[in-house]
Order: sequence, then structure tokens, then C-alpha cells
Amino acid sequence: MNERAVPSGDSAHAAQRHLAVPFTDVELHDGLWAPRQQAIRERTLPFLHSQYEKNGLFEALDVDSPPGPLRIPFNNRPNTAVMYWDSDIAKWIEMASYALATRYDAALDAQIDGLIERIAKAQRPDGYFNTYFIRREPAKRWTNLRDWHELYCAGHLIEAAVAHAQATGKTGLLDVMRRYVDYIASVFGPGADQKPGYCGHPEIELALVKLYRHTNERRYLDLAKYFIDERGRQPHYFDQEAIARGEDPAAQYYGTYEYSQSHVPVREQKQVVGHAVRAMYLYSAMADLAGEFDDASLMAACRTLWADLTTKRLYVTGGLGPSARNEGFTADYDLPNETAYAETCAAVGLVFWAHRMLLVERDARYADMMELALYNGALCGLSLDGERFFYDNPLASHGEHRRWTWHRCPCCPPNIGRLIASLGQYAYSTGQDEAAVHLYIEGSVRLPVGGAKVALIQKTRYPWQGAIELSVEPDEPAEFALRLRIPGWCRSARLEINESALDVEPLLDRGYAHIRRRWRKGDQVMLFLDMPAERVYAHPAVAADIGRVALKRGPIVYCLEGVDNEAPLHRIALPRTSRIAAQIDEAMLGGVGVLTAEAVVAGGESDALYRTEPPGARPVTVRAIPYSFWNNRDAAEMSVWIREV
Amino acid sequence: MNERAVPSGDSAHAAQRHLAVPFTDVELHDGLWAPRQQAIRERTLPFLHSQYEKNGLFEALDVDSPPGPLRIPFNNRPNTAVMYWDSDIAKWIEMASYALATRYDAALDAQIDGLIERIAKAQRPDGYFNTYFIRREPAKRWTNLRDWHELYCAGHLIEAAVAHAQATGKTGLLDVMRRYVDYIASVFGPGADQKPGYCGHPEIELALVKLYRHTNERRYLDLAKYFIDERGRQPHYFDQEAIARGEDPAAQYYGTYEYSQSHVPVREQKQVVGHAVRAMYLYSAMADLAGEFDDASLMAACRTLWADLTTKRLYVTGGLGPSARNEGFTADYDLPNETAYAETCAAVGLVFWAHRMLLVERDARYADMMELALYNGALCGLSLDGERFFYDNPLASHGEHRRWTWHRCPCCPPNIGRLIASLGQYAYSTGQDEAAVHLYIEGSVRLPVGGAKVALIQKTRYPWQGAIELSVEPDEPAEFALRLRIPGWCRSARLEINESALDVEPLLDRGYAHIRRRWRKGDQVMLFLDMPAERVYAHPAVAADIGRVALKRGPIVYCLEGVDNEAPLHRIALPRTSRIAAQIDEAMLGGVGVLTAEAVVAGGESDALYRTEPPGARPVTVRAIPYSFWNNRDAAEMSVWIREV
Repeated sequence: MNERAVPSGDSAHAAQRHLAVPFTDVELHDGLWAPRQQAIRERTLPFLHSQYEKNGLFEALDVDSPPGPLRIPFNNRPNTAVMYWDSDIAKWIEMASYALATRYDAALDAQIDGLIERIAKAQRPDGYFNTYFIRREPAKRWTNLRDWHELYCAGHLIEAAVAHAQATGKTGLLDVMRRYVDYIASVFGPGADQKPGYCGHPEIELALVKLYRHTNERRYLDLAKYFIDERGRQPHYFDQEAIARGEDPAAQYYGTYEYSQSHVPVREQKQVVGHAVRAMYLYSAMADLAGEFDDASLMAACRTLWADLTTKRLYVTGGLGPSARNEGFTADYDLPNETAYAETCAAVGLVFWAHRMLLVERDARYADMMELALYNGALCGLSLDGERFFYDNPLASHGEHRRWTWHRCPCCPPNIGRLIASLGQYAYSTGQDEAAVHLYIEGSVRLPVGGAKVALIQKTRYPWQGAIELSVEPDEPAEFALRLRIPGWCRSARLEINESALDVEPLLDRGYAHIRRRWRKGDQVMLFLDMPAERVYAHPAVAADIGRVALKRGPIVYCLEGVDNEAPLHRIALPRTSRIAAQIDEAMLGGVGVLTAEAVVAGGESDALYRTEPPGARPVTVRAIPYSFWNNRDAAEMSVWIREV
Repeated sequence: MNERAVPSGDSAHAAQRHLAVPFTDVELHDGLWAPRQQAIRERTLPFLHSQYEKNGLFEALDVDSPPGPLRIPFNNRPNTAVMYWDSDIAKWIEMASYALATRYDAALDAQIDGLIERIAKAQRPDGYFNTYFIRREPAKRWTNLRDWHELYCAGHLIEAAVAHAQATGKTGLLDVMRRYVDYIASVFGPGADQKPGYCGHPEIELALVKLYRHTNERRYLDLAKYFIDERGRQPHYFDQEAIARGEDPAAQYYGTYEYSQSHVPVREQKQVVGHAVRAMYLYSAMADLAGEFDDASLMAACRTLWADLTTKRLYVTGGLGPSARNEGFTADYDLPNETAYAETCAAVGLVFWAHRMLLVERDARYADMMELALYNGALCGLSLDGERFFYDNPLASHGEHRRWTWHRCPCCPPNIGRLIASLGQYAYSTGQDEAAVHLYIEGSVRLPVGGAKVALIQKTRYPWQGAIELSVEPDEPAEFALRLRIPGWCRSARLEINESALDVEPLLDRGYAHIRRRWRKGDQVMLFLDMPAERVYAHPAVAADIGRVALKRGPIVYCLEGVDNEAPLHRIALPRTSRIAAQIDEAMLGGVGVLTAEAVVAGGESDALYRTEPPGARPVTVRAIPYSFWNNRDAAEMSVWIREV
């Protein structure tokens, strides 16, 4: 579609690219993630299934029966959440497929097949599939890409199809979606009889890259690139489309094309703006395509946007998008805590983007961010029991913010679910004669490297402890490099191979200890990451955090929760000199690292509302838990940022 | 109407009651208030007149012409601001009458007369007067007292009528309103053919007390008492009325009768709740009636509510009602700064209530509060030039909060205007053989005390300096007591009479130095109030103010404004040991007291959004101005509460 758009696999850049290991080749055993994957299998999947049933999502698949009243009316918005139900079903299938690969379950397998059958049955003869438009508004197909999420829904179904094929080898959904994509490729493109359009909500672009990687068919990649390259061009497609509907293009619900990152062409975008999930999905696809096409200008845009996000517009938790109004970004350093929107899906999206940047640039700062968003902003969205969810993730609450079991826009539960269910693929990658370990999680992976098949077996209590034991098990001796991430927060790391110490410093390459040698079965690598509890301060331009400190240990951001501390929390202050002690509390929340410190509580000696003497301060021991574990007990106050005195 | 409701003038309580001096007998000359009164005469009155003209308020008086489209539609609310336009006209007439008494102006006199003529012309033959209902909804008269402000509008017109009569001796408006009140008294009452109703927005009650005091006609007082006693009784009048309209009584816009302080009978009310202006007007009438009827249970309720407001629900500025949602109260200690609603009218209402409590109890703590609300929360509502206004008064702003020239609910401008135009009456009062000075303002008063006619002449630069020179000028020597308020914030006061020092301590009675002697023409009293700049801290239960300090000197609360300080203000912190220096800046804002102190600014040495080292601090001199004078220059940030380190 674009003559210059030739993937080149032989440049210097391309040589450094890594590939994620397939999720099917990783097992996680540790105390944090394995129980979460188990909860997803045993609780989240059946629970969401019953919620979808109850709320009409599955019934919507029966496109030939009369639709009945719209369950979620438009309410002056340009769209209804019913328009995205296909994407929720898709994410459920994707999550279920990952779960199936981790542990086979015949009933779940059959349940997925049943859904795929219904989807196949609903597909139109021309390949089109969208339950909302087929059933309710057939005449409006492709008439409002700006607001109506048709290609977005297709994208999630493509992701589901690829995951299902990878997990099961079955191609039922994949076949449906390939037919649909063929049809989409006929509708959209530069031809005179085609629409030069793209979706208001990016998603299909990254999905098409996945489809390309699974099928090796270039046209999927080209279509993704077409959507990315068209985005934000003038004359603006959304303007034309609005005029065609007889509407004023300026009468947009959110007032600006920044909302959908279509205000300027993507290579000209310098600031992370608009709806945060859209931004993350868009940038993920941009990174994917920059890697596939070795596209320097696209990668430069990604790096500029990355710098903007991480130095001006990101919560300390890896949460992003402070405002509920646009579910997205506002102004530099505008990071309020109590009203932080920081949608779970946005942090999940940051994991996606960071992972893709990492695979292109093999730089540990992306892995650091991936890990930060994963353990904090994203994980926070799912309860320990797997059946309660956060949509928005404030960094402070008076106790009124609680996990819910259903939301009229139920996008977040299957999003954090599919991330966790497929987490293994984020931990390891392979490049030219090298394998990299990005995340330290107890478990194992099988991967091909240096001409051998190698098993890597991790034993660790990370993130609660910094010691990692790595067994390298090639099926035959082989020379290759192992890249072990030395996290950015770690000031001191020690390394031993077969009980001989190695100097880490000279091995470092973009944040990884790079160990090239001939590996033999039974080789043992020991990595010790110094992991003290640390105080974190925000840039002083962040008004909400001035005079405050956050506590962090390793990748984990901590918070004070009311159930563990004397309420109200705002009275608590941490003296700058207090020592912060770390320990694992095996009895708490399934076993988590906790921090304790001596703090002070402002006392109310007098009933006077205003007085000329400052409140007194009495000592108190505070206990902090990982932020992402909060509200798994009774409703209570919570605060990440603590006053420092 | 109530057999027990006999005003008794001879009890111990009644003996201590004071009467305000008539506003006609006071002149103010000082550097703060005299220019404000001048601005009201020369700017506010003509400016609001033209705004009323432009926005159709005056045109609405022509009730016999067709109404035209409603200028302010209902917009899902139970009422339109057009329903209260009569009250805005009334407050303008009231303010204009006060201004006229201070300095006669024939054109203004004629302008008022013209309006009164139009009002008289519009009055119905039965006495009814309400431009909205006469012109637009004649069938709906008295059908929704809960939401539609009919008696509220009547109340403001009564206040205007009394003020106009006092100021000019003319009874045109008074006659109209007495006819209207006679009609109201026929409609409302305990009779079988009467409605046991009262207004959702209290106001007429305090107005009827004013009418009683001016005319000495008991029935007005009785009607006020009837309204107060009926309020909140079961069966609830607003329920009955809603049922009569065919509506569900529970379907109230604000969800609770707390909104209008009609949730329980007034004597059972323990907490200040609901719409803040309604609360202040109600409590003002309750205090008036408690005094007039020597009603201990009513006064007890006033005292309980006073304690609740002043120990749990009041801003340091004397602003009140933190929430925009109900324009009122929320929860104890919920006093956010940036989102503080703190309506100007509510602080004006607190001046009214405090003044009435003071007259009943002769206790300086009420005068302290009256002064605090006057100089800070209320005065803030009016610009120096008299033509720009604040409706809501946040205690912190990023610079987006600015004075406006018009508001669709234009209640505040004439409310702060009428308060300032009549301020003299709040400064002095007389009781049995005594005169009291509550407010120190350069100027003079003529009052009858001890059988003599006495002029009191104040010379002072209060509130910028604490020295007051008081000349006592009886027309003949007379024995009486002079009560001089020693403000609660003053830790040390010195007193001299004719250059002889008096020990203040033994003279103190409920916050007043009580000086009984035989006064002769030429007696000079010198009062020196120690007035250091002070730090004020909030009760630690106030989350918004924890770790913060406000600066106060005398009755004046200070703020940092961006134009005088290095922005953004949140980076500034005041070390606990910094000395705060006070001076008068004659060139600034018409000459005001300013405070300066050595502070620190958090520095952004690094671009990192998060870092493990706290921001550095470099020294800076901060300059604070009186809070109520802010936003009289360029738009800028503002903060009352400053971080303390």
C-alpha cells in the first residue's frame, strides 16, 4: 500500500530486535503471579462469563434475533458501551485461551469453542462482523469511525483469534477473522473506491501486527501501517465522515482530535495527549511497526512520546491519564492523587507499549517501566480473589473508592486478566544468539538460543527479595549470551556463575548484564539485587505531591491503608530520618512484602478549629502494603504519598 | 399566633440586649471602608443598575406586558434564577437607600423612587407582589414554597422598604410591603383556611423582625415567629405541597430537607447543614426572635449551631459552605481550599447572624466572628473598583478563578454591597445605660446614652494598626458605661483615659473593657491593641490544611498571590522559625497591610519526574496581602494556606 513500507530485517537496528517467547512456553510458579493466574482460571473467567450472560453481552451474539431495548442508552454521548461488547467477548476469549495454555481444562475449551461457533455463525457473507451494527444499525456500518469502535472491536477479535490459535492450534476464530480482515482491507485503503479511514480508538493496528507475526502474511502488516500512516492526515478523515453524516465536524463530544491522537500525523506527535488507553494502544502499534519496518522516524516519535510520558505525565505507580473527563491526559505535572483516573486499561496499555519498545531497543529502561506498570498501576485493577475490579485507580482515597463486580463499560477486567494470564511472554525474549530475562518470576521457560533448546529455571522470592537463582539447562552445550536485567532502581547487584563471582559493571549493556559463554546443563547463575526500601519524591512541579514522599522497594510502590494504620491517614507524617524496615508478611494478603516505619500523628489536643499553636505530634508505627493490593480487605482510606516532616 | 410567644422586655436576658445604632447615625472615614462605600455609590450602584437593565430584571417589573421567552431556562432544576429577580432589585434599592443616607444624591433618590413606583404599579389589588408569578405563572402562586422563593423575595423587598424609609423618611415602598405582608399574614397561619407554610429559603423572617422594629407592630413579629416555629414540623408542609402538585415529595432536587434547614423543627437542629445562605438567614431570624421573645430554647439552638459552625465547619476566612453541589455544608472538617464554594452571600449572612447573636448576648466572641467574616470572607466578594465580584471564594486557586461582572444568579453583588453601605450600624450599639464599640473604624457616631446625646469619634488606622483614639463627646456630662471590644486575637491591650493608664483585666466583661464613669466632652480614650502577625493552624482533622499555616494579623487573613511571589505557589514553604514582618504599603491596593517573611522554594534541580532525593530548597522572600484584596490585579495563583517546614 505504501511503496516505501518494506520490512527490512537486515539493518543494524533490526539485528538488535528481540522476539518475545510464546506464552505457551513459560510457566510461572511464584507466590505473587501463580495465584493470580489461578484466580483468573478459577474465578475471573467463570465470574465474567456469568456477568456477560446476565448483562446481555453473549445474547448480543445472536444477531438474527430481534435486538430488544438498548441496555445502555446513549445518554448524550456519541456512543453506547453496547458498541464495544464484541471487544469484551474477544478479551474474554483471549484470556481464556491463555489460561487454557497454562493448564488445560476441557470445559473451558468447549466454552470457548461454543462462543467461536456463535461468532462464526453471526459473521456476514462479506466477512463483516460486528454484533451491534449487524443487529441494530446495519445501515450505519463504517459511517462513524471516530466514535463507534468498529475497527477497535475487530482488533480485539483478531488478538483473540491469534491467542486461541497459539493456545490450542485450532483456527476456527482465526479463519473468521482472516475473512473479516480481508474484507476490511477491501474497504480501507488509498483506492478510489476505498475509505482512507482509521479507527478513533487504536487497537486493530497492533492486532494486525500480531496476525502478521502468527501467519507471516505481509498484507496484515501493510494494513496496520496504512492505518498508522493515515492517522491525523489532512483533509481529516473524521471531518469528511462527519460531513457525510450531515454533522458539523467541530461538534465533537470531546472537542479535539487530541482525544483520539488524530490531531496531527503520528510522526509529528510530541506530547502524550487525549484518551490514555487509545494513546497506549496507538504507541504500541507504532513501536511494533517501527521495529518491523526499521522505521527511524516512527521510532523517533515513539521515543519523544516516551520521554514526554515518563518525565511529565505519569503517576509514580505507572498509572496514567489523570482526568475522568477525557479518560486521559491533561497538562504537564498535573497528577492529582484523590481524583486520579489512571484507568487500569491504560496501565495495561503501558505494559504493552513498554514491552514493544523493549523488544525493539533492548533497553532495560523500558523493562523497568513495564515492570513498574505491571506490578502497580495494572495489577491494582484486579482483586486477590479475581472477582472484583478497579476501573480508575486513585493514589489516595478517603475510603469511598472500592472494587466493583460490574461496570457499564466492562473493559478493564478482561484486559488486566489477559495480561496476567499471558504474563510469561513478557518475562523472556530471544535475539540473535541471545536470550534475555526481563522479569524475575519463579518459574521456567523453554527457548531456542545458540542452536540449542534451553530451559531457564528461576527460583526467587522476587519482588519481595532480590536474590534470583537461575538454572541454565541447554539440551546440549551451546554458546550464547544471556542478558539479565539489572533494574534501574538497583544500586548494587552481585552476580555469581557456578559459585564464582563476576564483576557486573563491565558486563552492563543498556541495563542488562550481558553474559556470553558456552553454557552447559547444570550451570547456575545467582543474581543478588540490592533492594532497600526507598523514599521517592516527585518533581517539585507536581503540586499534589509537594512535601510528600512515596515508599518503594524494588518495583513495588507502597501505600498506607486505613485498616493497617491509625485513621485518618492525612494526620500521619514520616520524619525524613525514619528508618524504613522491610519484611515479608506471610499471613497478609497471600504473603506480601510490607514496610514499617516510625512516624508521627498530628494530635488534636484542642477542639479549636483554628489556633496559633501547631498541632502536637505523637509517635506511631506505620505499616505500608503494596499499592496494588489495597482494598482487598475492608473499605478504608488509602494514600500512596505521605507527608514528610 | 402562639399564646406563649410574648416578647418580654424585663427579664435578666432582655436587660443585656443591645440595639444597633441606626445606619443613618454613623459616618465612616477610614482608609479601608470609606473608599469602599464610595465605590458602591459611584460604581457598584450604577454598574449593577445597567446590568439589571441589560439582563431584563427591571423590564420584569412591567408585569402587564407580555413576558417574552424566559431568559434563564429551568435546565432540569426546580427553579429559575428569574424567580428571584425581585430580590435582586430589592437588594439594589436597599443598598441605594443606605448610600443615599451616607451622602445624598438627588438623581439616585429619583432613580429609587422610579423603581418603587413601578413596584407599586405592579402590586395586585389583594396586595400580592411577585413579578415572576404575576406575569408568567399566576396560577402557581404559593404552590411551591420549597423551591420557588416567593416569600424570600417578599423578605428582601421588606428589608428594602425599611431601609428606604429609614434613609429617606419616604414610605412609598413601605406602604406597598405592609399591604403585601397583611396579605401574606392572611394566607399563612394556623387557621383552617390558611396554609401552615414557610419559605424554602429563609429571609422573610428576619425581614419581618426589621419591619416590626421599624413600625413597632407586633403582628409582624408574630408572623416571623410563626414561620420559624412551623419550620420542619411534621406532617411536613413541603411534603403536603408536593402531593398537592401531584409530585412525589421524595423527588426533591437536593434530596433532603436539610438543604433548606427544614428537616426537623429549628429548636431540634444541632448541626449547620444544607444551603449555607439559607442557614445564615434562618439562624439570624432565630437569634432576633430569641432576643425579642426572650426565648431560651431558641437561643440554646442558636448557641448549639454557632458552636457547630465555628468549631467544625468554617473556613479560617469566615467563609462557609464548602460545596458547590448544595451551595452549602458537607461534613465536619471538610474544608477543601481550591474547591471551596464559600459563597460571598454566606459570609455576608454570617455577619448578619453574628451581629444578632452579639446584640442578644453582648459577647465579644460574636463580634470577633462578625469582624472576621466581614474583613475576609464577605469583603472578598467585591473588587476594589466596585464593579467585579466573586460568587464563590476558594482559599487557593491556580489562577483560573477571577472576578466577574455578571452572573446568572446575581445575588452576591448587592448583598455585599448593602452590607458595606450600611456598615456603620454594625460598629456600635446601645444598651441599658451603655454604649458599645464593636468595630474599630475611623469615623463617628451619634448615639443616645445615659440620658445624653453622645458623639463618639474614632481615629485609627485599624485594621492595619492597633491604636485607636476615641473621643467621647456628650452634649452634657453624663454617667454611662462604654464597652470597648478587646478582640479575641489580641493577647495584650493597653487602655488610657485622658492620658491615665487603666488596667484592662479587671474591666473585662465577655470580651469588652467595661468603663463606667461620668463622661465629659473632650474625654479621650486611647486603646492600644497588640497586633502581631500570627501563624494560624487548623485542627488536624482538616485534611486540606495539614502541614500548612495561614497568616493572620488582627482580623485580617492573608494570602500569597502569584503577582507578588514566585509561581507556582505550591513550591513555597515557610520555615516554622521565620519571622513575619508587617508593614503598610501605601502604594498597594489603595494602601493595605502586607506581611513579608523569609521562605524557601522547592527547586527542580533534576528533570526526573520521580527521584530518591528530596527537592532542594532555596531562600525566597514572600509577600502576603489581605485575602479579601486578591484578584484586584492580573489573574494569578493564590493561596491562603502555606506549607510549613
